[in-house]
Amino acid sequence: MTTQGKLVGKMVIGQSGGPTAVINQSLVGAVLAARKQPNITGILGARHGIAGIMKEDFIDLTKQSVEQLELVATTPAAALGSVRLKPGKAECEKVFEVFKKNDVRYFFYIGGNDSAETAHIIAEMAKEANYDFCTMHIPKTIDNDLKVTDHCPGFASAARFVALAFMGDDRDNRALQGIKVNVVMGRSAGFLTAASALARQAPDDGPHLIYLPERVFDVEKFKQDVRDAVAKYGRCVIAASECISDKDGNPISTSGERDSHGNIQLSGSGALGDTLAALVKEAFPGQKVRVRADTFGYLQRSFPTIISPIDAKEAREVSTVAVNHAATTGQPGSVAIRRLSSKPYSSECFITPLSTVAKVATVMKDEYINAAGNDVTQAWIDYVAPLVGELPRMGRLYT
Amino acid sequence: MTTQGKLVGKMVIGQSGGPTAVINQSLVGAVLAARKQPNITGILGARHGIAGIMKEDFIDLTKQSVEQLELVATTPAAALGSVRLKPGKAECEKVFEVFKKNDVRYFFYIGGNDSAETAHIIAEMAKEANYDFCTMHIPKTIDNDLKVTDHCPGFASAARFVALAFMGDDRDNRALQGIKVNVVMGRSAGFLTAASALARQAPDDGPHLIYLPERVFDVEKFKQDVRDAVAKYGRCVIAASECISDKDGNPISTSGERDSHGNIQLSGSGALGDTLAALVKEAFPGQKVRVRADTFGYLQRSFPTIISPIDAKEAREVSTVAVNHAATTGQPGSVAIRRLSSKPYSSECFITPLSTVAKVATVMKDEYINAAGNDVTQAWIDYVAPLVGELPRMGRLYT
Repeated sequence: MTTQGKLVGKMVIGQSGGPTAVINQSLVGAVLAARKQPNITGILGARHGIAGIMKEDFIDLTKQSVEQLELVATTPAAALGSVRLKPGKAECEKVFEVFKKNDVRYFFYIGGNDSAETAHIIAEMAKEANYDFCTMHIPKTIDNDLKVTDHCPGFASAARFVALAFMGDDRDNRALQGIKVNVVMGRSAGFLTAASALARQAPDDGPHLIYLPERVFDVEKFKQDVRDAVAKYGRCVIAASECISDKDGNPISTSGERDSHGNIQLSGSGALGDTLAALVKEAFPGQKVRVRADTFGYLQRSFPTIISPIDAKEAREVSTVAVNHAATTGQPGSVAIRRLSSKPYSSECFITPLSTVAKVATVMKDEYINAAGNDVTQAWIDYVAPLVGELPRMGRLYT
Repeated sequence: MTTQGKLVGKMVIGQSGGPTAVINQSLVGAVLAARKQPNITGILGARHGIAGIMKEDFIDLTKQSVEQLELVATTPAAALGSVRLKPGKAECEKVFEVFKKNDVRYFFYIGGNDSAETAHIIAEMAKEANYDFCTMHIPKTIDNDLKVTDHCPGFASAARFVALAFMGDDRDNRALQGIKVNVVMGRSAGFLTAASALARQAPDDGPHLIYLPERVFDVEKFKQDVRDAVAKYGRCVIAASECISDKDGNPISTSGERDSHGNIQLSGSGALGDTLAALVKEAFPGQKVRVRADTFGYLQRSFPTIISPIDAKEAREVSTVAVNHAATTGQPGSVAIRRLSSKPYSSECFITPLSTVAKVATVMKDEYINAAGNDVTQAWIDYVAPLVGELPRMGRLYT
């Protein structure tokens, strides 16, 4: 089973959690890297992650043409299919049984902190069972909420979508003035919502207010903020994270559905946008105000062509590093990104133990959020701008 | 006031109604064309259309740099500001007074059928008052619902956004299977919703169902359609126009707000999406189905970088033709597009009387809608595909 300390056998790769615009770059990067590793004897793609493994629902990725794979790499959303499933003991045992039966010695799981936890559990089981086996977590999440890493593959492309959306929407709001609420994805962390600030090119450009889940959402303060912004700009564009909560930690608005990890359904409903629009109307009693709300929804994570070049490159790098590390050391782990420089941007990958990224996610640093809790800081812009890449200049007429 | 039958004086240009990604191409095209016409002695941009004219709120467009104008041309949404205002007799008289006071002999109004109506009313008033004056309507609407013309500038770029959104969202829905409702803009006409069909590259690609306002929306039929699609594909992506209505003509869901043209507010709320998602859940009683709804909202009409090249070119052409026609003939009218060929695509502009496009809008032809009223036909694809331009290929893994 091992040759000169190296594991010899097949690998299984799966994708898990919410798709991103570049998760297929990670898939393709892993497949192409694995083909160059002689001790990886077969490449099985698990359909819908853990769920597919239990059913032995695999796609043979050993022989897909490079041309086909490269087309998959530039296509958004998980080409293998994804899943939101937290495996219990019984499921893990089943997965393990399938791995043994198929002489699988490598498992690569592309996902967020929940997927890292799954990978970690399986790695621990292999150790207990004394089965020579290597599990790697390959990071992916538009939420950007993984620990250790500087940022997560998938985030920058979604951030680019959000920045562009706010650039256009701010012009739309200038043209037909009023108050506009835009609800942005992000489970527990405000990174993606905060990326809306990149839309600003002039001092009066929106978003004029940014509400992040890292700060308590206070209804009365919100109303006053909006009144102040309207007094200053004659209009107001608002970025609100889908998971803003009150002082007791209750989400301002949700549909109440939960997945098997216990995560509440925040996307795929216009409820929060409509709630915030109603609050804005309350802020201007007796006045006719034009208030609109958009919930960006799934477009943020799967829109073709809106891809950050750095994100695409790094999404491929993390999986290449994961495969090469596993094939040469046999040691489990997760891949993280270290930023070497912001101007010009450069980064490198490194390996971190699965336990350091599993289960618990992170949130935005305090230094990225302004004192009033309704905007971001320059430190945040300095962090996020290089990741998203150059944005088009917006023109305007001068009087 | 006239030289050799030509009107000599200033021009006013305004933008009206919902913004588009290329309405500024029309603005810039008109300005650059007007600079070459010696009998147009000044170019005034009206801020927020008719509302700005009444307040004499003008931007001097005679001297803005070409570089600045070209940047405005590629920027979405109305750079002059827009307005939703149907002027009554008193407002029209005020507008007219301002025109006379400022020696304005040309008025160009970029907008949809409501704006054409405004232009028409003002042209009629000038005739009655025996004031030598030329009013031109320059077509613009993402709804594509103007009469006479083959299609409307602004539509193709919004259609491109919708097609790309469905391409990505279909991959997202494949990855995490379930039923997805996407609500698309379009007041009274289904053109933009129907453009979702361009997302299909393989027989099982979504959208699997398309609901247009040209057909009665029947709740029970909808539920059966969704059950059938899920039985066939194991999932279902649905495109629904924001203004689908029941057999009595009542919108399935609206927030109830109306503008001064009597148009109901359909966008800027997640209400319809949530209503349809609830209906889908009802279609599967006792079953746990994953149902999500997104309302594409304002992103469809103002997203930077998602622009059809043909749309950008034609948006500039219609305004160039409008200015040249007005300056050389002094005759009022609207500009329409005639398609000369679909493969390869070519078109030409022509002048049509204001009365032919004013007020009354059009809807999709019967030949574009399938017999069951839940999809489009090949004739529709043949019509719309050349306008939207080449779309990226979506990759997939084959088993």
